[in-house]
Amino acid sequence: MGYEFDRDTSVSARGDGTYDADLAPGWVVGGGVNGGYLLAIIGNAVAAEVGSAGPEDGRHVDPFSVSAHYVSASVPGPATVRTELVRTTGRFSTVRAVLSQDVDGVSVPRIAAHATFGNLDRAHDASTDAEAAALGLALPPPVLPPVEECVLSTDAPPEVKAIAPLLDRFGTRFDPATAMWAVGQPSRKGVIQGWFKLADDRPLDPIALLLVVDALPPVTFDLGMPGWAPTLELTAHVRARPAPGWAIVRHETRTVAGGLFEEDCNVWDSTGRLVAQSRQLALQPRG
Amino acid sequence: MGYEFDRDTSVSARGDGTYDADLAPGWVVGGGVNGGYLLAIIGNAVAAEVGSAGPEDGRHVDPFSVSAHYVSASVPGPATVRTELVRTTGRFSTVRAVLSQDVDGVSVPRIAAHATFGNLDRAHDASTDAEAAALGLALPPPVLPPVEECVLSTDAPPEVKAIAPLLDRFGTRFDPATAMWAVGQPSRKGVIQGWFKLADDRPLDPIALLLVVDALPPVTFDLGMPGWAPTLELTAHVRARPAPGWAIVRHETRTVAGGLFEEDCNVWDSTGRLVAQSRQLALQPRG
Repeated sequence: MGYEFDRDTSVSARGDGTYDADLAPGWVVGGGVNGGYLLAIIGNAVAAEVGSAGPEDGRHVDPFSVSAHYVSASVPGPATVRTELVRTTGRFSTVRAVLSQDVDGVSVPRIAAHATFGNLDRAHDASTDAEAAALGLALPPPVLPPVEECVLSTDAPPEVKAIAPLLDRFGTRFDPATAMWAVGQPSRKGVIQGWFKLADDRPLDPIALLLVVDALPPVTFDLGMPGWAPTLELTAHVRARPAPGWAIVRHETRTVAGGLFEEDCNVWDSTGRLVAQSRQLALQPRG
Repeated sequence: MGYEFDRDTSVSARGDGTYDADLAPGWVVGGGVNGGYLLAIIGNAVAAEVGSAGPEDGRHVDPFSVSAHYVSASVPGPATVRTELVRTTGRFSTVRAVLSQDVDGVSVPRIAAHATFGNLDRAHDASTDAEAAALGLALPPPVLPPVEECVLSTDAPPEVKAIAPLLDRFGTRFDPATAMWAVGQPSRKGVIQGWFKLADDRPLDPIALLLVVDALPPVTFDLGMPGWAPTLELTAHVRARPAPGWAIVRHETRTVAGGLFEEDCNVWDSTGRLVAQSRQLALQPRG
């Protein structure tokens, strides 16, 4: 049967750069389908389109940078991803990808994205990475209580689960210090962090990281603003191929203004290596 | 005669969504034309395209989020920006824009971007902004020495100016603590910050902020890695319309790995309000 993430993010090629996908209902949150899940679908379409580009020892199979503008809310059901190659070099391929859904016979764009793919194995050189880390140029993960002392996301109260069936896809364990919003006592610091894995233990890989950066509830929960926070734009950078095991995810906002907030996300793998970063600009939930 | 920023970033409409621009030689840095300058040109083309969209009291004249993938280095001379409307609603318009240059009769893409425009005056509500600031949800600017105690960028050593004629466009005053790379003693913290204005005192506005987020030298200078750091991707979020006067700009990197580094930039206006944020993923300079 395989893993649900693979089944639900698969795309099928029409042969003209267009890919068909089916948005599964399990990834719904608030008023739409989770933005990270949609980004992974776009990632799969781009990987299919440029995965054979690049040198033999460095095919462009991995996302390095994906930037997406969310222009309307997606709903479960059929979707298409139209890709168009912008430019390919030996090191990187950049593709435009638009995810759309048919509404009453009209194709409505949901997400307009550009993605730059390359090869993460080829990019990394252990000695220069170690040199940078020695200089302190490797963002360390936050210190979390052990997994078993953290709060299971699937234990969220009914009013949270009601807007997020998505929670059942994950094995997230929240740091209790940043999870008090779940019992009506948000810290008001604008931070949510915890241990992360997929519910069915599907190992994380670069495409799955596109999901992980948008997998936690919006940090506005921790500000005492429950409710859906629609993403306007999200850019994800995948920095390294993740090692197996629990990841650590931290979401933070520093500025809420003009009805918008930025949400920065960092993801570390089980070895403590920073593997993905993202920033999204999102609409502040309306009380 | 007007200001050089306005003259050098102006675009002329062909009427089919295509805009002509002329990349001026004064904005060259390292192996190409400055990415922030190019982003401002794209911003002008998008503003021309959707500036009449939206309600009467909230035309879509301001950039909220612009994400750009830099696929080849630009050179001074003619360029075109092709725009295509993705979607427009009452609040936002999203446009795709590709900046290209003609090379031996072939149109070569330089930057592929998506831009979401709206109206910054309409977005802000003084009371909710004040409420968020009271919660500590407004990133404060760094404390800098007074302008007159900071280091003028145009006093940079010859080897820096040689790769950056761009420096003469700005009145940047670097915080001495993060400018020791200029005398061969980089702090190796990965931070560069200072006071910012345009050399000819052209007031900052939302389009100019697209330039400001990429106006300082790469933070890799502060890591003892002089040289050009080509941008792979840059996303800028404009958070508020800037007040007149000196801005404060801070660039920082936290992770150098795999030959890449992220550079986060925050810009505050003279009142201390965060007005723009950006993150770019760039290639580490080769020693």
